[in-house]
Amino acid sequence: MQDFELIIGDKNWSTWSLRPWILMKVAGIPFREAHIRLRQETTKAQALEHSPSGLVPVLKWDGNIVSDSLAICETLHDLFPEKRLWPEAVPTRAQARSAACEMHSGFMDLRRDMPMDIINRYPGEGHSEGARGHARRIVEIWRTLRSRYGLNAAQDEGFLFGHFTIADAMYMPVATRFRTYGVDLAKLGDDGNAKSYMDALLALPAFHEWEEGAKREMAARG
Amino acid sequence: MQDFELIIGDKNWSTWSLRPWILMKVAGIPFREAHIRLRQETTKAQALEHSPSGLVPVLKWDGNIVSDSLAICETLHDLFPEKRLWPEAVPTRAQARSAACEMHSGFMDLRRDMPMDIINRYPGEGHSEGARGHARRIVEIWRTLRSRYGLNAAQDEGFLFGHFTIADAMYMPVATRFRTYGVDLAKLGDDGNAKSYMDALLALPAFHEWEEGAKREMAARG
Repeated sequence: MQDFELIIGDKNWSTWSLRPWILMKVAGIPFREAHIRLRQETTKAQALEHSPSGLVPVLKWDGNIVSDSLAICETLHDLFPEKRLWPEAVPTRAQARSAACEMHSGFMDLRRDMPMDIINRYPGEGHSEGARGHARRIVEIWRTLRSRYGLNAAQDEGFLFGHFTIADAMYMPVATRFRTYGVDLAKLGDDGNAKSYMDALLALPAFHEWEEGAKREMAARG
Repeated sequence: MQDFELIIGDKNWSTWSLRPWILMKVAGIPFREAHIRLRQETTKAQALEHSPSGLVPVLKWDGNIVSDSLAICETLHDLFPEKRLWPEAVPTRAQARSAACEMHSGFMDLRRDMPMDIINRYPGEGHSEGARGHARRIVEIWRTLRSRYGLNAAQDEGFLFGHFTIADAMYMPVATRFRTYGVDLAKLGDDGNAKSYMDALLALPAFHEWEEGAKREMAARG
């Protein structure tokens, strides 16, 4: 097994860090963590020590490096094809990549108005028109993929395509945002499938481990 | 060969459409084009007829569908592994994906202040501090990848990793922006490698075909 080191930001805030972290945990790929504290004067300089993009997360292994959450996930898929980090059939995988990429490049209003803040609860805040529009689209994605693929999977563990894939890792931070800001999925067109999917993400033991880390870090910041 | 249909927006403006289009052209993958005129009242409704994301581009084949430029490129890589749409070695491919994903999720100021407008020239416009910062970072990416991989490739055709890959497709629109807004790469840390790379992108016969299409479409708009 390669010697992996994942450089991440604060667990309470860093959505991009959460994605490869939880993918590796759920897939059982061992790694060491290194931390960069965000929102400090030294943050950018610290990140640049690891990667010329100056951004986290970064994954290092055996003298190699890959930055960007999605690029890390795709690289892990290359390194561990047997772990089924994407659905196996190409047309189904295409659906998973469409969903993952729509998250990766979009939903800016949601990201701006409902920033991830795992340990806090602000019900009703952040519900701008743009954020609600994006939340409605995300509910549609979740509903559609769950009903078309997840519920019909040979191994349905409650995720978009049955077992946990990169698409789920990409939407993990959204589940925490919906919880923090008290987003009512039923009002956004949910038939129950999106809510039960969100609950499945938040119930992951790996997510609880991340959440406990977020609490410890925020307590240490004081 | 599959029967591919690529749904794209206006060639003068749609950066996301250009990416999979030029990848398929350079790779020699035949496809039919369907067009949606952007910036019209009917645009969203037309796009929704093709894809629930309401966004272009969309690729359809044999009853399957994939949306998002990067997801389309990755799916083509799945379908045509022999076409080397990514570099073959996993660590090199990781570098290519890092660069592609940094473009896919970022450089918002550059995208806002220097929107793609292939047929026009606005030298000196759009040079906001944010856009210049991103242009500087892109010059660094191009220089670094060209000197580390492209110049050392067995088959160097002037692109980031030698032959044309998805990473080049992702940066193709940036080359047109730098030309439209007269960005001086030398002032942004270029040693000449970034400029010659930009010239290689703009000299692609497939890009000329796209450019001629952009001219025809804009003339028809009047």
